[in-house]
Amino acid sequence: MVFNMKVEILRLGHRKLRDARITTHVALTGRALGASRMYLCGENDPNVGRSVKRVCESWGGSFDVVYREDWQHLLKSYAGVKVHLTMYGLPLEDRMPEIRDGSADLLVVVGSEKVPGKVYELVDYNISVTNQPHSEIGALALFLDRLLGGSELHLDFPGGKRRIIPQGRGKNVVKLE
Amino acid sequence: MVFNMKVEILRLGHRKLRDARITTHVALTGRALGASRMYLCGENDPNVGRSVKRVCESWGGSFDVVYREDWQHLLKSYAGVKVHLTMYGLPLEDRMPEIRDGSADLLVVVGSEKVPGKVYELVDYNISVTNQPHSEIGALALFLDRLLGGSELHLDFPGGKRRIIPQGRGKNVVKLE
Repeated sequence: MVFNMKVEILRLGHRKLRDARITTHVALTGRALGASRMYLCGENDPNVGRSVKRVCESWGGSFDVVYREDWQHLLKSYAGVKVHLTMYGLPLEDRMPEIRDGSADLLVVVGSEKVPGKVYELVDYNISVTNQPHSEIGALALFLDRLLGGSELHLDFPGGKRRIIPQGRGKNVVKLE
Repeated sequence: MVFNMKVEILRLGHRKLRDARITTHVALTGRALGASRMYLCGENDPNVGRSVKRVCESWGGSFDVVYREDWQHLLKSYAGVKVHLTMYGLPLEDRMPEIRDGSADLLVVVGSEKVPGKVYELVDYNISVTNQPHSEIGALALFLDRLLGGSELHLDFPGGKRRIIPQGRGKNVVKLE
């Protein structure tokens, strides 16, 4: 069942100065839409993990950010289906039935500016969310949506300090405990 | 018909140094998924428009980035349905049937760090893509997906210099004309 699937993200080629916010958005989008961990590759940057930790403390759930120097080793040793999101890959919706059935665990690989050619070889699928250049964050959101079939919009995030009561106007935030 | 709808984006509170890449991702995600223009508010930043123009020249289609100093005037005078994406708003899927039926034109409003309270009042809908903090880029992608019903994954971008032929491995880019 797809709902028991563990979904993790591999963020390639992080550059501390240039990518800090984009990489944090990748992690937060992953967290909000059902992933449980992001492996950070490229430059080590504890600020990303710290930002995400603060979000989990406030808003609940758990999401790890784990630095890995050797992305090739991670890709080679990962016990699950590996999907690389790239504008050059095969259309999202064509391969999704296969990907959903593939395994209990899934690693979604997103690059930054330049992705080494080897990545295309080491993954099980190279998947495009349109063949236009846009954003790894947008691509990740749509990939997780198709993977989790819309259930990612209704997840529980237990253990936070605050919770939002949805409103037509303004903000309604309840403090918990 | 939803497919004739003109969809535009209003990016609030852009800060040139801090938001350059995030705002560019907002524009590119909007472009790739069916929007035709982004109004840029906050600090003026011609680089965003230049980046997007280069993408259109290479990959086709048309997408404007237009700077507007006065976002209040823009919101007040916009002839169409205005939807603000915010984690505090009403769930995406609950309001979507209404939003899709609302008008020929639609303005999707996304903020950066702090969104003035007035925005919540000046729009027709405050909509949340989950009530968790994540990314205006991920939220925009899922909003456009639900709005356009998946058709945004199959758009044509006429007039570019190159086109991708989707591949399971590697890259296949054809030069046009």
